[in-house]
Amino acid sequence: MTANFADKNPFPVSFADVEAATKRLQGKAFKTPVLTSQTVNKQTHSQVFFKCENFQRTGSFKFRGACNALMQLSETEKLNGVVTFSSGNHAQAIALAAQLLSIPATVVMPADAPKVKQEATRGYGAEIVLYDRTRNSREDLTAQIAREQHLTIIPPYDDARVIAGQGTAAMELIAEVGELDLLLVCCGGGGLLSGCAIAAKTLSPQCKVIGVEPEQADDAARSFRTKTLQTVSNPDTIADGARTPSLGKLTFPLVLHYVDDMATVSEAQIRNTMFFMWERMKIVVEPTGVLAAAALLSGVVKAENSRVGVIVSGGNVDIREVDRFFS
Amino acid sequence: MTANFADKNPFPVSFADVEAATKRLQGKAFKTPVLTSQTVNKQTHSQVFFKCENFQRTGSFKFRGACNALMQLSETEKLNGVVTFSSGNHAQAIALAAQLLSIPATVVMPADAPKVKQEATRGYGAEIVLYDRTRNSREDLTAQIAREQHLTIIPPYDDARVIAGQGTAAMELIAEVGELDLLLVCCGGGGLLSGCAIAAKTLSPQCKVIGVEPEQADDAARSFRTKTLQTVSNPDTIADGARTPSLGKLTFPLVLHYVDDMATVSEAQIRNTMFFMWERMKIVVEPTGVLAAAALLSGVVKAENSRVGVIVSGGNVDIREVDRFFS
Repeated sequence: MTANFADKNPFPVSFADVEAATKRLQGKAFKTPVLTSQTVNKQTHSQVFFKCENFQRTGSFKFRGACNALMQLSETEKLNGVVTFSSGNHAQAIALAAQLLSIPATVVMPADAPKVKQEATRGYGAEIVLYDRTRNSREDLTAQIAREQHLTIIPPYDDARVIAGQGTAAMELIAEVGELDLLLVCCGGGGLLSGCAIAAKTLSPQCKVIGVEPEQADDAARSFRTKTLQTVSNPDTIADGARTPSLGKLTFPLVLHYVDDMATVSEAQIRNTMFFMWERMKIVVEPTGVLAAAALLSGVVKAENSRVGVIVSGGNVDIREVDRFFS
Repeated sequence: MTANFADKNPFPVSFADVEAATKRLQGKAFKTPVLTSQTVNKQTHSQVFFKCENFQRTGSFKFRGACNALMQLSETEKLNGVVTFSSGNHAQAIALAAQLLSIPATVVMPADAPKVKQEATRGYGAEIVLYDRTRNSREDLTAQIAREQHLTIIPPYDDARVIAGQGTAAMELIAEVGELDLLLVCCGGGGLLSGCAIAAKTLSPQCKVIGVEPEQADDAARSFRTKTLQTVSNPDTIADGARTPSLGKLTFPLVLHYVDDMATVSEAQIRNTMFFMWERMKIVVEPTGVLAAAALLSGVVKAENSRVGVIVSGGNVDIREVDRFFS
C-alpha cells in the first residue's frame, strides 16, 4: 500500500480494521448461523438472510466488539484490567471476553438493574460496582474508577476497536451468502450499524444499508436527516438496547458516510415481529434484536426481488417475563 | 444385491429405506441446523450436537415422515387424497406436505384441540373433521372416513414410510458431524426413535442409541425392559408428543432390535431443560422436544469424553402461554 495523503481514511475505522478483527476473533467469537424462512421470503418476494447474533457468545453481537477491543490492549493494560458501564449486553460481553483473556474486569451498573443481568455478569467473573442512578453519572463514576485503579475504559460503542469488532457480523454474513442488495441493522449507539456498513460497502458495493430504530427513540434517524447530532432521554421503548441517548462522536460521522437511510418502527411492529420470530422461526430474540426484521416484515422498508441481509442482534430476555411482550 | 433368504431383513424398514427417503426429501424437507453449546460441552465433558428439528418445516421432525409417505403414494391415491388423526405436529406436517404435493388432506382432530393447532392445520389447506373425544374413537372415525371417501390413511408413526422419513434426521446429523458415541432421541410412538436408530447403527456402528420418555409416560421403557408391549392411558406430562398410548406394531420390534436402552426424565427435568434451551441456547423448543436433551443435562444418561447427538424434535408451543412452563 502506498502512503499517499490523498488516500488517507478520514475515519478511525476502515474495512482493514474489520478484516483484522475477523481474523483476531477466529476461535474466540462464534460464527453464528444464518437462518432463512420460506414464509418471510414469500411475504417479501425476496431472499432474506437472518444473521443470528442471538446465538453469539453471551447472547448478542456485543461479544465481537468487546473481545476485539480487549485483545488489542497492551500487556500492562491487560494486567491492570478494564472497566465499563452498561446494564445490558455490553456488560456480559466484556465480562466473558475479559474472563477468556484473563483480564480483570469491573462493570458499573445501576443498583436497580435486573438481578438476572447482575448475576449473568458476575457469573462471567466480573466485579460489579452498583450506583444510584438518581445521584451519580455512570460516565463520571467509571472515569473515577478508571483513574483511581489504572483501568482502561472500554465504552459500549464509541470506540474504533469495538466498531470494527461489530462489523465482523456483516463480514461473516456476506462471506457466507454472497452479495446483498439490502442490509438492515438495528441502531442504538451506532456501533453495530457503522461497523456493518463499513463491511457491507466494501464487500458488496451495491448494497444499500439501512439502520433501524424504535419510533420512540429516533434520535439517530433525526441526526441522519438533519446532519446534526440529536438526542433522546429515557425513551419509552421495549427495545432497551436502543435507549442510548445519541450516536457517538465516532459513530455519527460513520453513519452519515456509510449508511444509506434510517427507518423507524413502532412498538406494535416490534412486538409483532418478536412474536413471529419466536412462534414461527423458533428463535428467542430480544426486542432490540428484532428491530431490523421489523422494518422489513412490517413493510416500513420495501424489498422486492432482492437479496436482503437482516442482523438479528441479540436474544437476552428474561424468559420468566415473556408474557409482558406477548400478552 | 443378491436375493438370499438369509440376507432378508425381518423388518419392514431398513437403512436402504432411510437412504431413499433422504434422497426423496431433498428440496422438500429442510436440512436443519446443528447447534452446539460450550456450556453443555463443559458440563457434560463431551462434544454435544443438537439436531434442531424445531427449525424443520411446520416446526417438527414430523414433516420428514409425512412427506416421505405422501411422495410414495400412487397417482390414484394422490388424486383421492389422504386422511390422518392427530391434534399435534403430525397434523400440520401432513397438511403442509399434502399442500406442496397437491394432495387433498383431511385431519381428524378432537373438538377440544387448541384453536391455534386447528388454525395452523387449516392454514396449510387441510380439511379438519372434529369429533367428540368422549363419544368417538379417532381410529374408528378415521377408518370410516377413509372407507367412505377412498382416502389413504397416513398414521402418525406406525408406518414404514413414516419411520424411514423420520430416520433422515439422524442420517443428516451423522453426515454433518461424523460418527457418534451416543445418540439420544425422544420417544412417543417410536417412529423417530426407530428411524434414527436404524440410520445411526449403520452409519456409526459403535453408537449407542437411547430413547427418552417422560417418567409419567414410560410405556416404551417398560415395553423395552419386559419385551412385552406396555401401555399408558392419558399420562399427566407436559410433553404432549409423548402421550401416545404405546409403541406400534412396527416400531416396537424395531426399538427392541436397534435401540440400546431407554431412559426416563421427570417433569421438573423437562421444565429445567426447556428453560435452559430457551434462556441460554436461544431456541424455542416444545416440552417433547427437550426430552433427549433433558436425559443428558440432568445426568440421567451419563456421557464422558463422548461425541453425543441429541435430537431436538420440535418447537411448537403457544408462545402466549409460555408462563405456564416457566412460572
